[in-house]
Amino acid sequence: MKKRNCLLGQSGGPTAVINSSYRGILDQVKNSPDLDRIYAMRFGLQGLLEGKFFDITDKSKLELELLENTPSTIIGTSRYKISHYNKHEEDYIKFFDFLEEHEIGYVFYVGGNDSMDTVAKLGSYAREKGIDVSIMGIPKTIDNDMVITDHCPGFGSAAKYIATSVMEIARDSRVYDLKNVHIIETMGRGSGWLAASSILAANEKLYAPDFIYLPEVVFDVDDFYKDIENKMKDQKAITVVVSEGIRDKNGNYVYAGKTTAHDKFGHKRLGGVADTLKPIIKNNLCKRVKAIKFDVMQRAAAHCASGRDIEEAYQVGAEAVKAALEGETGKMTAIKRISNDPYQAEIIRVEAEKVANHVKLVPDEWINEKGNGVTEEFIDYVLPLIQGEIDIKTENSLPVFSKLETGV
Amino acid sequence: MKKRNCLLGQSGGPTAVINSSYRGILDQVKNSPDLDRIYAMRFGLQGLLEGKFFDITDKSKLELELLENTPSTIIGTSRYKISHYNKHEEDYIKFFDFLEEHEIGYVFYVGGNDSMDTVAKLGSYAREKGIDVSIMGIPKTIDNDMVITDHCPGFGSAAKYIATSVMEIARDSRVYDLKNVHIIETMGRGSGWLAASSILAANEKLYAPDFIYLPEVVFDVDDFYKDIENKMKDQKAITVVVSEGIRDKNGNYVYAGKTTAHDKFGHKRLGGVADTLKPIIKNNLCKRVKAIKFDVMQRAAAHCASGRDIEEAYQVGAEAVKAALEGETGKMTAIKRISNDPYQAEIIRVEAEKVANHVKLVPDEWINEKGNGVTEEFIDYVLPLIQGEIDIKTENSLPVFSKLETGV
Repeated sequence: MKKRNCLLGQSGGPTAVINSSYRGILDQVKNSPDLDRIYAMRFGLQGLLEGKFFDITDKSKLELELLENTPSTIIGTSRYKISHYNKHEEDYIKFFDFLEEHEIGYVFYVGGNDSMDTVAKLGSYAREKGIDVSIMGIPKTIDNDMVITDHCPGFGSAAKYIATSVMEIARDSRVYDLKNVHIIETMGRGSGWLAASSILAANEKLYAPDFIYLPEVVFDVDDFYKDIENKMKDQKAITVVVSEGIRDKNGNYVYAGKTTAHDKFGHKRLGGVADTLKPIIKNNLCKRVKAIKFDVMQRAAAHCASGRDIEEAYQVGAEAVKAALEGETGKMTAIKRISNDPYQAEIIRVEAEKVANHVKLVPDEWINEKGNGVTEEFIDYVLPLIQGEIDIKTENSLPVFSKLETGV
Repeated sequence: MKKRNCLLGQSGGPTAVINSSYRGILDQVKNSPDLDRIYAMRFGLQGLLEGKFFDITDKSKLELELLENTPSTIIGTSRYKISHYNKHEEDYIKFFDFLEEHEIGYVFYVGGNDSMDTVAKLGSYAREKGIDVSIMGIPKTIDNDMVITDHCPGFGSAAKYIATSVMEIARDSRVYDLKNVHIIETMGRGSGWLAASSILAANEKLYAPDFIYLPEVVFDVDDFYKDIENKMKDQKAITVVVSEGIRDKNGNYVYAGKTTAHDKFGHKRLGGVADTLKPIIKNNLCKRVKAIKFDVMQRAAAHCASGRDIEEAYQVGAEAVKAALEGETGKMTAIKRISNDPYQAEIIRVEAEKVANHVKLVPDEWINEKGNGVTEEFIDYVLPLIQGEIDIKTENSLPVFSKLETGV
C-alpha cells in the first residue's frame, strides 16, 4: 500500500497546551508505517485556502519535545467559518483539490465548538462525494464549553493559572490595614468555567475568593453591591472574581455599559467588566478598588500549566490519528472521566456534529443558592484537572519554546 | 548579660521575596544567644503606633520555611512617614517607650527609599537621646530604584515574571495572520527598571519586545507612533512594553491624560498608560490593539520568583542582624556586585541616610540612542538577577503559603 500524507490545522483561540496535541499527532504519525509527510495549515483553514502551509515532518527531535511546554499555537490559527457546501462549494473544492494534490488522506483539525462544525461539514462533504479522506477533530478551549467531553484540553492549565494568581493577589491585597476590593476579571463570554475555577484558591483556607459571578446567573448590580457591603462588615480586604460575560436581566453584557447598572449609578463603559464594576464600589463604598484582568496570560501561561492537561492534550491528538487509521471520520476525540479518586479518564470518539455549535454551561447544581459562588461539587470536578507538575526546559532561567514554524 | 528582644517592621509596597528577608532575620535572631523574643509591627510603623504588634518568636519551623516562597508581606505594611523629631516628637516618644517596655534593643525595618529615611531618623534620634538601640534597614522594592545597592531584593523576581510573561504574550500575539499591537504596562512610576527588564524576553531570539519606553526618556507620542508605523512595514505583530511612569516633555504623566498626546489625538484619560496609548494606535494605524497590565501580579507572583532573589533577600535580612549585634545602627544592608560571570556579590553596610529619599534611574548609557529600548549592558546587569529555580511547597498542585500572621 502506498503511504499517504496528513494535514494538521487549527481554528479558534490559542491555549497553553495545543502544541502538546500537535506533538501527540506528530509522534503518532511518525510511528505509523502507512503515513508519510505531515503538512500544517499556516494560520488555519483560511491560511490554507490562501495557499499557506508548510511541511513539518522533518523537524528536529528537540523542536518536537519543546512543543510540550510551548504555549499558543505553533502553526497559527484563524476564525474562518466555512458555509454549508450547498451554499458555497468553492472552499470545499479548493480544500479537497489541495488534499489530492498532496496525497493527503488524513486531516487533523484542532479547535472548539465552531471548529467541530467545520470537521462535520468537511467529513460529510467527503462522504457525499466519495472522497477517501478521514477528517478528525481534536478538542481544545480554555473556555471548557464543549459538550460530551468531560472537559477540554487547555482549561486545566488556565484554571491552574487563575487559582495560583488569585492566591497571590489575595495575599497582596491584605498587606495594608485598609478596606479594599479587588475585582478580578477572567475570560468566558458564554460560560463561567474559568471564573468558577478561581474557587481553587480556597485551597489556602485563609483567603478564598469571596464572591464569584458567572454568566450562567443573571447579574444584579444591587445584589453585587450588597454582597460586598455585607462582607465588608466582617473583613477589610475583599476579592471578587467575575467572568467577562456576565449579563443583566435583559441579557445585556455588563461590560458593554448597556445594563441598568450604569443608568442607575451614572457610569459608562470603560473597557472590561471589572473596569465597569470598579466605580460602582469606588464611588459608593470603598476608595481602594482594583480592577485586574488576567487577559491573554490566562491562556498563554505555559510556565504555570497543568501537567495532566499537557498529557491529555497529547492523548486526544495521538488518539485522533489512531482513530483515523481505523477508518473513522467526522469524529472528535473526547475525554471521558471514569473516576475522581484516583483520577482516571479515557479517550473516546464522538460525532463532531453532536459537539458542533453547542455550549456547555456550568450546571445549576454546581452554583450556590445566592448565585455568587460555586459548590464543593465544582471543586471535585476541577481539582483533578490542574494536577501534575511540568518539566519545562529553560535557558538562563527563562523558558525555551519551540520554533517549529520557522526554518528549524 | 541579659537577653534583649527584637522588633521587625516594614513599610511600602510588597514584593515576592520580603518574607524571605524576614526569614533571614528570624533565623539569625534564633541563632544569637544574646537575643530573645522577636516582635513584629502589624501593618508597619503606623500599626505599631496604634498598638498593633504580635510576637512571632515561637512560630513553627514549617511556617518559617514557608516564608521562603510566600509572596507579599506576612506582617503587613503601611506608608506612614514620620516627620523630623524637631517638628513632631510624639511618634518618637511613643515608639521608644514601646521599645523600652518590651526590652527591645534591635529594630529591623524592611523598606525602600522612604523607609530608609525612617531608619535614619529613628537612629539619629536614639543617638541624640542616648538610647541604646540599634536601628537597621533592609532594602526591598520591585522598582529597583535605591541608590548605592547594586540592586534591590524583589526586583529580580519581578523581572523574571515580566520577561516570562512577555515571552508568552508575544507567542499569543502571533497566532493570527493579522496586524496587531500589544501594549504591555509595567509598574515603575519614577524609574524604568521593570519595563527595561522585559528585554530578557529576547532570550528567545525570535520574538523580542520591539520597543521599550522608560520614564528616564521624555515620551514623544509622535515618535512612538512612528516607531510602530515603521515596524509594521516589516512584521504584523508588535510588542511594546511601557513603564507606567512615562512623561511628556512638560513633565506630565502620559497616563494622566494631560499630555499633548491627547489634545492632538483627541482622547482622554482611560486608566493606565497602556489604555491611554491604545486608542492612538487603534484609531489610526491598526484595529487590533491590546492594552495589558501586569498589575500586582508582577510583585506577587511567587510561583515565578528568582531563586537568587530569594537567597539575597534572605541574606540582607540575616546580615542586618549580624550588623546590629556588632553595634551598627542607622545603617542599611546592601548588595555589592563583585563579578558577573560567575555572578558574585557580597552584603555591605551603608548609611541609611545616604539611601533615603534618593532615586536611582536606569543609566543613560544603558538606554539606546532612539530612547525606545535598552542596550546589551542592561542585559548583562539584569540577567544574573533572575537566575535560579525555586522549590515551592505545593498541595494539590497549588502553592502553600505561610500563615505566620495568624495563630499558627
